Amino acid sequence: MEKVYYMDNAAATRLDEAVLEAMRPFFFETYSVATSEFGYSLGIEARDAMEDARGRLATCLGADHDEFIFTSGSAESSNLAIKGVAKALGEKKGKHIIVSKIEDFPVLYSARTLEKQGFKVDYLNVDEFGFVDMEALEKLMTEETILVSIQHGNQEIGTVQDLEKIGALCRGKGVLFHTDATHSFTRMPLDVRKVPVDLVTVSAHTIHGPKGIGGLYIRKGTAISKIMDGGFQEFDLRGGMDNIPGAVGFAKAAELVTVEENRRLREMRDKIIQLVFDQIPDVILNGHPSQRTPQNANITFHYVEGESITLHLDMHGIAVSTGSACFSRSLEASHVIAGIGGDHERAHGSIRLTLGRFNTMDEAVFVVETLNKVVENLRKISPLGKEKE
Amino acid sequence: MEKVYYMDNAAATRLDEAVLEAMRPFFFETYSVATSEFGYSLGIEARDAMEDARGRLATCLGADHDEFIFTSGSAESSNLAIKGVAKALGEKKGKHIIVSKIEDFPVLYSARTLEKQGFKVDYLNVDEFGFVDMEALEKLMTEETILVSIQHGNQEIGTVQDLEKIGALCRGKGVLFHTDATHSFTRMPLDVRKVPVDLVTVSAHTIHGPKGIGGLYIRKGTAISKIMDGGFQEFDLRGGMDNIPGAVGFAKAAELVTVEENRRLREMRDKIIQLVFDQIPDVILNGHPSQRTPQNANITFHYVEGESITLHLDMHGIAVSTGSACFSRSLEASHVIAGIGGDHERAHGSIRLTLGRFNTMDEAVFVVETLNKVVENLRKISPLGKEKE
Repeated sequence: MEKVYYMDNAAATRLDEAVLEAMRPFFFETYSVATSEFGYSLGIEARDAMEDARGRLATCLGADHDEFIFTSGSAESSNLAIKGVAKALGEKKGKHIIVSKIEDFPVLYSARTLEKQGFKVDYLNVDEFGFVDMEALEKLMTEETILVSIQHGNQEIGTVQDLEKIGALCRGKGVLFHTDATHSFTRMPLDVRKVPVDLVTVSAHTIHGPKGIGGLYIRKGTAISKIMDGGFQEFDLRGGMDNIPGAVGFAKAAELVTVEENRRLREMRDKIIQLVFDQIPDVILNGHPSQRTPQNANITFHYVEGESITLHLDMHGIAVSTGSACFSRSLEASHVIAGIGGDHERAHGSIRLTLGRFNTMDEAVFVVETLNKVVENLRKISPLGKEKE
Repeated sequence: MEKVYYMDNAAATRLDEAVLEAMRPFFFETYSVATSEFGYSLGIEARDAMEDARGRLATCLGADHDEFIFTSGSAESSNLAIKGVAKALGEKKGKHIIVSKIEDFPVLYSARTLEKQGFKVDYLNVDEFGFVDMEALEKLMTEETILVSIQHGNQEIGTVQDLEKIGALCRGKGVLFHTDATHSFTRMPLDVRKVPVDLVTVSAHTIHGPKGIGGLYIRKGTAISKIMDGGFQEFDLRGGMDNIPGAVGFAKAAELVTVEENRRLREMRDKIIQLVFDQIPDVILNGHPSQRTPQNANITFHYVEGESITLHLDMHGIAVSTGSACFSRSLEASHVIAGIGGDHERAHGSIRLTLGRFNTMDEAVFVVETLNKVVENLRKISPLGKEKE
């Protein structure tokens, strides 16, 4: 097979060889079940490896070892954060939660599930860049509000929210604050000693780690109830078989992300955006020019369908995504582009490029060259292009 | 490190090299996100691999491709089966469910969670072997009953229930039937075309597959609601990032289990039981002599603590488990041994040996020789041993 240039959300899901090597002993040698503490020494070795991984991941967030639990991925982490707080505080304190309009599906649909159970949910507006409306947020908060969930870096347009400001507002009102940091973890700084955030969703699959493992930071003392019943694993907050190779792989993946790598991603991203704006007319950058995750570029090409662009790029061996990050298949217009005020055409003409460790600057240049040709051709033949004339 | 003889529940969690090889292309080459259907061809390749894995796993149960969904493991599968049916039918049909007393924690504690939400749960008695009381089951069923959950092979004592009989009873009453087949999948036959079961929990981690992936068979037309919110993955029954390497590894793991291997496990199991009974006095076999999973032997040694046995076996490089399969750490007496009428001493003196692909008959013989010495010594020094005199 000829080389494929992955610049869709899969780019970051390619496993790093070093991650697999770190996991290997836990596949074939120390494969004990971590919870068999009494009994034999390899059980303890396996558990120690898991606790070491937990500690290292917690440290990435400035958290303590016992404030980080493993889950099956970011979807579960966000389900637990939102439904777990609702379960713990709904009857005691109130049934109101606030999420932004441009959250990823696990947050949005967990909120909708709570709505069906009698909770009141407000979907907070964002501005043209995707930043939440702080004044509106303050006005929405009531005595009944138990949780605010606003993401760190957006899954489609990369916009990075000011968590410190949002957190301070929540803290001032005594409201718990959850952030989905799936697309920013280790890519953007987030230190829970400085940022007043109570719950943070993270995942291995966005940083060249294994799929099927994620985590949730839970600040000490946060009111939260278990949603996955089973054994007493994860400080009795998540039942289910320990995934020790996954935990070890996740910690290794986090360790492999460096400041230098993030700088390199940012340079590639900026190069792509700059070249597109230099060479291709009628484009819009979706999201903020600088306040965005280093790996993300999201651009609307007027008068063409994103689907057509991706299909044509595919013929050149380039993999990118259209509209919604996680479910292009639905063909629904992106709720994120709609949230920042984009119309149907802008949503359908948008392309999301996501960069990973294995992309190079040459690829960035090649992708834009190809995009230029593809978009030019499509605009010639597209009925949308003709509308322009 | 010297050789370790794993005969605890970890024995079956050692990954098979062939499973890792099957997963490898999906770590490093076809690592696309399966749901990016439109866009590029590798997305389709990845999705095809996932659907192929789904189809092969469904076939292991005699099910159709679209009756099998992937989850993060057996805990999630059982949570979904029980809470998902409760969510779908609780308001519409009734709020009564029945589970056996010796179910594994995900089933037991999902049922308890429902109790807290106003459901009525009956915990069905079992006989001395662990078989459910069929008459009691029939009597417990009412117009309000929406679900019966009774496992296939028990996690601690290996007892295999007569699913055909239980299923027929449920079907006759129009009640949905879930079985947790975590410890029997591919080890004991289960064909949903013959057995009237509606939901089946399975997992990769018990058959030398990867951790972090499981599945749930859902018979066509079964009333069930999603519990993990997110994208529209898994026929919109489970949101969250597709774990394609996990799915492929799971299917490979299932493929590697053979009738011949199961016969070999059964022979080792029977050899262990026979040698223990020949050589060591004052022992009880927990579970049924023949109606048990091929990999399981569970034996109580009177006048000794299971914890002491495991610690001493560990010094000889042998890893076994005590009491409860998944959480020896709790040191609580096994609810399974209690369920079959065992007292505190019987529960605490029990040892569970679980065999896997990588165990040999020589190991089986060595383990019993060592057990004989260890138990003899412990009985000499144990205060429980002295009680005997």
